[in-house]
Amino acid sequence: MNVDEQLALIKRGVVELIDEGELRKKLERGVPLRVKVGFDPTAPDLHLGHTVVMQKMRHFQQLGHTIYFLIGDFTGRIGDPTGRSETRPPLTEEQVLANAETYKKQVFKILDPEKTVVVFNSEWLSKLDAAGFIKLASCYTVARMMERDDFEKRYREQRPISIHEFLYPLCQGFDSVNLKADVELGGTDQKFNLLMGRTLQAHYGQESQCILTMPLLEGLDGVRKMSKSYGNYIGIDEAPEEIFGKVMRVSDTLMWRYYELLSEKSLDEIAAMKEGVERGTVHPKACKEDLACELVARYHSEDAALRAKQDFENTFVSGALPENAQTFTCAFGEASAPIAFLVAAGLVKSRSEVRRLVQTGALTVNGERCSDALAPLSLGNYEIRLGKKRFIKLCVTA
Amino acid sequence: MNVDEQLALIKRGVVELIDEGELRKKLERGVPLRVKVGFDPTAPDLHLGHTVVMQKMRHFQQLGHTIYFLIGDFTGRIGDPTGRSETRPPLTEEQVLANAETYKKQVFKILDPEKTVVVFNSEWLSKLDAAGFIKLASCYTVARMMERDDFEKRYREQRPISIHEFLYPLCQGFDSVNLKADVELGGTDQKFNLLMGRTLQAHYGQESQCILTMPLLEGLDGVRKMSKSYGNYIGIDEAPEEIFGKVMRVSDTLMWRYYELLSEKSLDEIAAMKEGVERGTVHPKACKEDLACELVARYHSEDAALRAKQDFENTFVSGALPENAQTFTCAFGEASAPIAFLVAAGLVKSRSEVRRLVQTGALTVNGERCSDALAPLSLGNYEIRLGKKRFIKLCVTA
Repeated sequence: MNVDEQLALIKRGVVELIDEGELRKKLERGVPLRVKVGFDPTAPDLHLGHTVVMQKMRHFQQLGHTIYFLIGDFTGRIGDPTGRSETRPPLTEEQVLANAETYKKQVFKILDPEKTVVVFNSEWLSKLDAAGFIKLASCYTVARMMERDDFEKRYREQRPISIHEFLYPLCQGFDSVNLKADVELGGTDQKFNLLMGRTLQAHYGQESQCILTMPLLEGLDGVRKMSKSYGNYIGIDEAPEEIFGKVMRVSDTLMWRYYELLSEKSLDEIAAMKEGVERGTVHPKACKEDLACELVARYHSEDAALRAKQDFENTFVSGALPENAQTFTCAFGEASAPIAFLVAAGLVKSRSEVRRLVQTGALTVNGERCSDALAPLSLGNYEIRLGKKRFIKLCVTA
Repeated sequence: MNVDEQLALIKRGVVELIDEGELRKKLERGVPLRVKVGFDPTAPDLHLGHTVVMQKMRHFQQLGHTIYFLIGDFTGRIGDPTGRSETRPPLTEEQVLANAETYKKQVFKILDPEKTVVVFNSEWLSKLDAAGFIKLASCYTVARMMERDDFEKRYREQRPISIHEFLYPLCQGFDSVNLKADVELGGTDQKFNLLMGRTLQAHYGQESQCILTMPLLEGLDGVRKMSKSYGNYIGIDEAPEEIFGKVMRVSDTLMWRYYELLSEKSLDEIAAMKEGVERGTVHPKACKEDLACELVARYHSEDAALRAKQDFENTFVSGALPENAQTFTCAFGEASAPIAFLVAAGLVKSRSEVRRLVQTGALTVNGERCSDALAPLSLGNYEIRLGKKRFIKLCVTA
C-alpha cells in the first residue's frame, strides 16, 4: 500500500489523529513503526469495547508495523499507596505474569503474535531512581497537569488529589520515551495521557509520537459505553451462541457502528451493504448475521460461527411467531419490561397472573427462559412468549 | 536544667514553636533529642544571618541534645533539571564534599562537634526508587501543596510551576522520616517545609517532629534581611577588624536585635544593659563594643577581638573629630552620599571639587578610603573627612 492508502486505513474509525503530517512523514520513511498501546495489568476479561483499539492495532500490523503491547504492571504492583481503596491491593509478580498470559490468550485472537512485542513498564520504571523521577517531573508544569478534566474538576470542587496522581501520567509518558514509540493508540478518555508521551519525548530529545484516539464503543443498549458494570457488553470469551445472539439483538443503527469499529470489512463493502438495506434489496437481519458470524469466527472459529448461526435460526425460525403477533414499542427504561405488555395485549388478566406463570417457567424472551417479568429489557427487538400459545413482539427504543 | 528552664532557653528569639506541649513531652523523657537542621549544599559563605539558626542549634547542644546537620546534597547534585537556570549546574560529589568541609570549618566555630552529626540526604534519597517516591507523593495533596505562599502566588499569576518543585518539599520531609527527627529548626521562610516533616512522619508511623522557626536577621541597614546580594552582611569569615567595625556602625536599635539573636549573653544580662543605656549609666557604644568583641572572639579568638577593639579605638579616637564637627542627618537613599553634605558644610565650593579631591584619595569614611563620593551610605553614623582638616559627621537613618 502506498502512504495515502495506509493513512486511509489508519484513519478509519479514529476520533483524532495528532498529527497527520507527522504520521505521513514517519510512514514515508518506509521503516516499520513502533506502535505503543498500554493496558491495565488487572485481570483482563476483554469485551468488544476493548477490541476497538485492538482492531486499530491490527490495522497497523497489516501495514507491517510492530505493536508494543505494554502492560502497565509498575503501577499495578504499587496498589493504592494512600491505602484509601481496599479494592486496589498491590499485584504480585505472579499475578501480573498470570494476567499477562490471559491477555495474550485473548488478544492473539486479534493480533498477529509475530508483530507483537509484549512489554512490562516495570522494566524501566522500577529502575528509575529519585533523581530520574525529579528530572521527569521537571518536564511538565502543575498548570498543564491541572488541565486534565478530572483534575480540574476535583480541584475546583475541593476534592483531594494526591500528588502521586500527578506522577502516573508522567510514568505513562516515560513509557513512550523508553519504547521510542512512533505512535500511541488509546481511547478518547486517554488523550491527555497520550499527549504526555509527545511532550516528554521532546524533552528527552526524541521525535514525538503521533497519537490516535479511538471512540468508546457503545454497549448493547446503544446509549452508554460498553462496560461490564453496565451489563451491556459482549465478552470475547463468551460462548459462540451468546456472542451471536447478543449481536443479533442490537438495533439496526448500532449495527452499523459495530461494523465500522469492529469488522474487518472495508468501508466500501460496509457502505454497499448499508445502501442495499436503505434501498430494500438487503435485509438488515442478513447484515447482522454476517457481523455476528465474523465476530464469532474471530473469537472462536468459522465452524463455531456456522453452528451458532444454525442454532439461532433453529430457535427462532422454528419457534417463529406468526406474522400477526401483536407488536409493542416502548422507550428503554423501567417500563421496558415484559409484564405490562402481556397484560396490555389481553393475554393475561392481571400482573399477578403473569408472575404466577413466570414461576412455572412459562416466560421466554427471544427463546431464553426469563425468571423476572419486571426486569427491563435493553434496546432491541424481542419475541416474548408465555407458554406456547401466548406471544407478543416488543421493540425497545432509545 | 529542668524542663521549664530548657523550654525558656529554647524559646528565646523563636518566632513560632509547634507545638510547645509536644516538645515538653519529648524533653520530659530525658533522652537527648534528635534536632534536624537542613543546609544548602552550595558553596557556603556564611554571614551572621545564617548564624541565628546556628545559635539556636547551639542552645540545643548546651542542653545535651544532638544536632543533625543535614546537607541537602541530593537536590544539589540534580542541579536544575528544567535546564532553565544556567546558574544551577549540578554539583559533583567532590564539590559537595569540599563544600561540606567548608561548612564544618565555619559552623564548628559555633557548634560543638561532639554533639553534631553531619549527614547527607543523598544517603537515603538516592536509594529511593520510583515506587518509594510514589508512596511518598501519596501522602500529600495538591491543594495543600498549593497553600505554600510562593506556589499559590505563582499559580494565581499563571507563572509556571514545574511538577518537580512539588517533589522537593516532599524530599525535605522525607529527610525527617529518615532521621527520625524530634525537632526541626529553620527560618520563618521554611515553615511550610518544616511542617511537611511533621505530616510525613505521621504517615510513616512516627511521632511527629516539633518545629521551631527563627526570625530572618536584618542586615546592617536595619531594613532588609541580611543577604550577600544586598551588601548588608557581616560574613563570619571576614577579618576581625571588618567584623568589629561593621558591628560598631549598626544603629543602637539594631544592636539590641543582634544581642537577642546572636549573643550568648542571657536575656537578663541584656535587659540590664538596655536599662543602663536608658537610664544613661551605660553608653551604647560600650554595649556595641562588647557585642563586637563577642562576635569577633567567636569567629576568630579572644586575642583577635582585643586587637580589633584596639585598632578601632586607635583609628577613631586618635583621629577623632573635634566635638564641634558639623553634623548632618539624612534618610537612607540616593541622597545619603557624602558629596552633598561636604558642599552644604561649606568645606568645598562645588561637587566637582569634591570629585577632584576624591581622585587624589583625600576622602575617607570612618577612616577608610572612599573612592566614590556619590555612593549612598547605608544606615549608621559616619565620620567623613576630606584630607586632614575638613570633616563632617553624617547620620543616616531609616
